[in-house]
Order: sequence, then C-alpha cells, then structure tokens
Amino acid sequence: MTKIRDVVMIGAGPSALSAAIYTTREEVDTVLYDKGVFGGLAAITDWIDNYPGFTDGIAGMKLAEQMQGQAERFGANIEFGDVSAIRDNGTTKTVVVDGEDVEAKAVLIATGSDYKKLGIPGEKEFYGRGVHYCATCDGAFYREKKLVVVGGGNSAIQEAIFLTRFTTHIDLLVRSSIKATEILQRDLQKFTDSGQITVHLETSTDEIVTEDNKVTAVKGTKAGQSVEFVADGVFVFVGLKPNTDFLKDSEIDLDEVGLVKTDGNLMTSVPGIFCSGDVRSGATMQIASAVGEGANAALNIREYIEDLDRQ
Amino acid sequence: MTKIRDVVMIGAGPSALSAAIYTTREEVDTVLYDKGVFGGLAAITDWIDNYPGFTDGIAGMKLAEQMQGQAERFGANIEFGDVSAIRDNGTTKTVVVDGEDVEAKAVLIATGSDYKKLGIPGEKEFYGRGVHYCATCDGAFYREKKLVVVGGGNSAIQEAIFLTRFTTHIDLLVRSSIKATEILQRDLQKFTDSGQITVHLETSTDEIVTEDNKVTAVKGTKAGQSVEFVADGVFVFVGLKPNTDFLKDSEIDLDEVGLVKTDGNLMTSVPGIFCSGDVRSGATMQIASAVGEGANAALNIREYIEDLDRQ
Repeated sequence: MTKIRDVVMIGAGPSALSAAIYTTREEVDTVLYDKGVFGGLAAITDWIDNYPGFTDGIAGMKLAEQMQGQAERFGANIEFGDVSAIRDNGTTKTVVVDGEDVEAKAVLIATGSDYKKLGIPGEKEFYGRGVHYCATCDGAFYREKKLVVVGGGNSAIQEAIFLTRFTTHIDLLVRSSIKATEILQRDLQKFTDSGQITVHLETSTDEIVTEDNKVTAVKGTKAGQSVEFVADGVFVFVGLKPNTDFLKDSEIDLDEVGLVKTDGNLMTSVPGIFCSGDVRSGATMQIASAVGEGANAALNIREYIEDLDRQ
Repeated sequence: MTKIRDVVMIGAGPSALSAAIYTTREEVDTVLYDKGVFGGLAAITDWIDNYPGFTDGIAGMKLAEQMQGQAERFGANIEFGDVSAIRDNGTTKTVVVDGEDVEAKAVLIATGSDYKKLGIPGEKEFYGRGVHYCATCDGAFYREKKLVVVGGGNSAIQEAIFLTRFTTHIDLLVRSSIKATEILQRDLQKFTDSGQITVHLETSTDEIVTEDNKVTAVKGTKAGQSVEFVADGVFVFVGLKPNTDFLKDSEIDLDEVGLVKTDGNLMTSVPGIFCSGDVRSGATMQIASAVGEGANAALNIREYIEDLDRQ
C-alpha cells in the first residue's frame, strides 16, 4: 500500500516554509518539493529591508535559510523535486513528482511567480544589486538617485510614478507605445511636465552598463540610433510569470494572468487543494504577505484534514 | 490650520508595526498610538516559536523591539496615547487621542484582542510560562506532558482535542456544562473514551499551583469539595475580548463578537478606515498573519491616499 502523506506542499519559498512551520509543529506529516532554490525569490534577493522582525534588514539568503531551518527543526521534509501534475481523487490527491506519484490528503500550491526578464547583458548579473523588479521592495534604496524604468503597461507607469517619491529623475524606456489606462496617462503627464520623468517611446533596452561592480547606465536603441541613460539603478516592469504550467491539465481555476484563484480560506476550486503566496491571484509579491498566507493556509489545511479524518 | 497626517494607526502591535514599516519606508507620514505596551501580545509572550525567520524561535519582547526599531528606522512616530473615538469627515478622519483631535487622510485600526482571563491567583504571574491562551501558539511546548484545559465552549473543546496530539493526558475543567456543537461533543467522546481527556463538569478553576517557579497543578472546586489536578501547564479558553470599545459610537461595522468587519482590501465599512491583525473579524491570533495583513493594509492605504490626492 502506498503511504498517504498528510500534506504535500509544492514550492519551498517563504509561503510554503511558513505553512510547513505551522503544520509540522502540529504533528501534521508534511513534505515540500521544489525544483529550484529553497527559499524562493527571497533567497536570491540581496537585501530584505521590510520583512518585519529584523531592525536593520537581513540578507535574503540568510532569511531563507533561517526559515528553512525552522521548518526542518519541527520535522518538515524539504526535497528537490519537479512537480508536473496534480490529480484530484476526492479524499486524496496525487502529485506527480519527477514522474512518480505521491499521494496526500491535502496539497498546498506555493510555487510563486517570477518577474519577466528582458534577457539583456548585465541583467542577471546585477539582479537585486542595481536591477530590480519590485518598487515596493527596492524603491527606497534609491533616495536622491537617478533611475531607468523599463515598460509601458499599467504597472510600469504606476511604479514609475511611485518611484518619483524617492528619485531625482527617471528615464522611462517604452519599447513601442504606452498601453496604460487614461487615468494613469494623465497622472504620468504631471510628472513629465514637472521634469521628474522623461518618457522615451519606441526605445529598446539593450544593455545594463556597469563600472566598479555597480550599475551606472542603460544602453538602448531609438530610431536606429544608440542611446545611453545615466542611472544608479534600473526597474523592469514587463510582466509576471506565475509558476502554474503544471496546473494546465488540472481543474484548478486560474485568473487571466495564470495566477491561482482561491476562496476566503485560501482553498482553490478543488477541495483539499490550497494556495498561498506569490502564485495566488491577488498576491502582493511581498514576503510578509506570503508568510502570513502560509500560516493561514496551514491552519485551514489542518482543519480540512481533521474534517476528512472524521468522516 | 491643523496638520493632517497621512495615516494614523491605532495600536502598536505586530500588525501596526508591519504596516508602519511599509508606509514610512514609502514616505507616507505615519503616527501610531498605543495606550499599553508597544509590540502588543507578542511583547508579553515569553517565547515565540513559529514566527517565520527565526530558526530557534525568539523571545516575544525581543521580536517586538526589533519590529519597533525597524518601523522607527524608516521614520514611524510611535507614541503613547489612548484613542477614545474616530469620526469620519469624508476625505479626512478625526481620531481622538487623549482627548485631543488628530486629523488624518486614512486610519488603520490594529488594536488587537485580548484573551479573557479567569482572574485567579497565579494566572497573571505565569502568563506564557505555564498559563496559555492559544493552543496553536504554545501547544507544541507540551509534548508528552499533562495539561489542564479550562472552558466548555466550542473553542475549548476544539483546542482540547487539538492539544491531545501533544499531551499524555488532559483534565478539562468546565464551570457549568459543555456548550459546544453536536459534532464537537461527539468528537470529544472519542477522546474521553480513550482516556486522553477527562471532563470535569460543574468545576470551578480557583488557583494555579506552582513550585520552583513552575506550574505543577490547578486547584478547583467541585460540588463544594476542593479538587486538585496535577499539570505541567494550563490552557484557558473562555473567550476573546476585541479592543473595540472606542468604536462604539462610530459607523464601523463589527461582527457578533465585536471584531471589525473588513472587505477584501482590509477596509472597514467606512472608506479610508482600514483594519488588520487580531482585532479583525476572521483573525487567526497568529503574529505571522497579523504581520502579513499589516503589509497588505499598508499597500491598500497607500493606494487609497494616492486616489484621494488625485481628486
């Protein structure tokens, strides 16, 4: 007979680790599978300033390690594994890990989302150290600095405007034309009028220029001409890629962006399958939120399993 | 002309501190008022084992201090002050602090809830060190131990059953009779049948007995007779007291227990007044959840103020 786990968590970022701290501490048998770095986006973030509890901030890798150590202290099994599908069998779920079936009473989807990248030289090397994808997370590091912002959609315009509260000047590089709401475009106008933001339409972003291990400028192309913008940092807002490919053939409802829809109990459209963190529809891409949702999901999973065992 | 603050936060526990870290880091002018200990229930909790990020746990007071220091580093004003009322003036709100009016564009209610106490000798002195009010928080400290649980309502029965996953035996002291759902009573029967829980009806809880600075027993009275139960710890589940007295004359909707109702954006029934943490209807009484909600509330408050300033 196959062993049936209490809960399989897909992903080992802050939200799943938080959930695992709660479930394992309460004797709920828990296994986490992640195909990448344990700790999720937090682990590859240089410095985390706003996760409550660390007065001066904490290195992302260190925070991730400490959360992992905490979950393991209570007995969480954290394993490398690539999840390719989930099947719902009613009172149990089957999670396909590296081609093998794992059975569980409940599942937590906490695979996170990735920021879409430009794929240009310097971008990967300076991730989190001059190249950023989250204004709420990293904007405050650019007080009285010059920035380049890349993108022309709603989030790019909104975040560029938000970043003006810190910066001296922003060059906004838009590949084609601006595709944002009327309201945002009117708002943007105020900042271009005041000279805080300069918009460059039909401008590609080609290379992050660095010197002495620091971002100093961004190279682009406008109307066939090479252009260069001096900058202390670059914020890229060209979209989000939720890690939900493995849900394609499942009955779990996704929103228009591909994020997982949940109810007030963080349960997906399939009973017994829960979701928390950056992959959830409505996510804020903040560690604090992901951790809070992980704890809540764990309490709901415990209750779900108790109800199941009672039947 | 009176100065109008961006946001007044009522309370300075983990949820408000988390929100303040977010707002102040984003240059949103923020003041917090608390009439008691900064750090809320966390600050008076001996040891916090399950707040994600601290592998071996952290002293509650230390966690509270670190969160406070973090919020202050970004510029939060945290002040002693007793809030007696909130008035809604449309685009501004008036918060009455120590009898003085403070004006703000937005308000966050994060005053928390207190556990109802028995008011017996030893209870206060051993709070968090043998006397507990939250099974999810502190149950895991009682692996292979004997407990007394006090209460006869739904939460007492539910939590007593939950605690059996750790304990060797539980004496359940019920002042009059059990007032829980049929389902819970049937569940309880299984644990009384197996001898894991012994129910004592019509039994008052009179005194926490200690020796060498440790809880060793609980004294009570049953049918006029003195009774004593050997125990390593006591869990009291006699209800929750939300800190919402100051909202009595406001138009903010509360639920049947007195907790503040919110929408999906953590906004109360009054636009511009938000709520997060243990005082919110649906709260889990977990620091992780309170902190996550605080961060989310801050993002929503920022957006609310931006919309307001745009008008």
